[in-house]
Amino acid sequence: MHKKMKPSALLSPIPAVMISCKGKLPTDKPNIITIAWAGTICTNPPMVSISIRKSRYSYDIIKNTGEFAINLVNKDLVKSADYCGVKSGRDIDKYKACNLNTIKIDGLQYAVGIKQSPVILGCKVKQIIELGSHDLFIAQTVSVLAQEQLFDNDKLCLDKANLISYSHGEYFLQGKNLGFFGYSVASKKALDRRRRGSRAAKRGV
Amino acid sequence: MHKKMKPSALLSPIPAVMISCKGKLPTDKPNIITIAWAGTICTNPPMVSISIRKSRYSYDIIKNTGEFAINLVNKDLVKSADYCGVKSGRDIDKYKACNLNTIKIDGLQYAVGIKQSPVILGCKVKQIIELGSHDLFIAQTVSVLAQEQLFDNDKLCLDKANLISYSHGEYFLQGKNLGFFGYSVASKKALDRRRRGSRAAKRGV
Repeated sequence: MHKKMKPSALLSPIPAVMISCKGKLPTDKPNIITIAWAGTICTNPPMVSISIRKSRYSYDIIKNTGEFAINLVNKDLVKSADYCGVKSGRDIDKYKACNLNTIKIDGLQYAVGIKQSPVILGCKVKQIIELGSHDLFIAQTVSVLAQEQLFDNDKLCLDKANLISYSHGEYFLQGKNLGFFGYSVASKKALDRRRRGSRAAKRGV
Repeated sequence: MHKKMKPSALLSPIPAVMISCKGKLPTDKPNIITIAWAGTICTNPPMVSISIRKSRYSYDIIKNTGEFAINLVNKDLVKSADYCGVKSGRDIDKYKACNLNTIKIDGLQYAVGIKQSPVILGCKVKQIIELGSHDLFIAQTVSVLAQEQLFDNDKLCLDKANLISYSHGEYFLQGKNLGFFGYSVASKKALDRRRRGSRAAKRGV
């Protein structure tokens, strides 16, 4: 049986990602805002959206520069991610407070990434839509950086990254792998091949 | 060290949700499409977005009716979710093929939900934006249903739902709870209160 609830933001689990940005002035400090209202919205061209309240310090920076980077969050970054979602860059240098380093991103003029993040997406804003409490920033991903240790023979193994997700106000580590896209209709041969591949990957072959 | 990659859809983990919809004719069968290009985009009013290829069977149904439901996916539903992402409703009655039941949703005229889903969001389309391979459907959540067994004294405990997420082509069970929003700056007193709350919830108090 189901209970009726008031309409609210319950889509879950969702990503909690660290969005980095920087103003146009050479004296502007790079900033970070953690956002869970984020998603992939298009495959080709690769596009993402993030939603930000107008009152947030990063709102004007991203609107004025038309740039940001999405930094995926792993287990080691989750405390910093939480901190960057609660505190404001108006008051604090978040890179310094969280002991994080910057990394240059191809295709972006102002925004830098977080060196400690396993995967960083450089994004250019294409459109901003006012929705209510939040504005929707629609952006194209123009560059991607991924940590070298996540690769097996040039194949990105994102399951090695210990990524976290966000659900109803709590952060969760990624748990057991339950299957790959298409596994429900895959032939026994394809399933066996995939299983052998996973074992080989685990052995570091 | 990071490696440069071709820009692609790497935001992760993301939700993999079962979108249910139904055409306007009484003879139209309810359909399901699984979508990972989905996200929360606004808190007030509560809004979500899903992205769909024009070629998908559900595209026209959702465009014509302006309605869909988001059905969150738990461990028991993951095989059905994969199946509903691979197969087309043009050829198959997916409710029947997956042994799923429908459930009525307040505020929607045509679309029904999936009775086996732990949480169901009824959504009304507000705007459709062409992006490229996918169109972005911006929608308002107008009603929510959540399974009774997920509640502790009227508090929704979504961590009980065994939800799954999607990352780089694979489904993952939600793993260890790493903390709540704000834990990085919470006082010792608040942390203790929260811990006691969790223990009480686990005992079913």
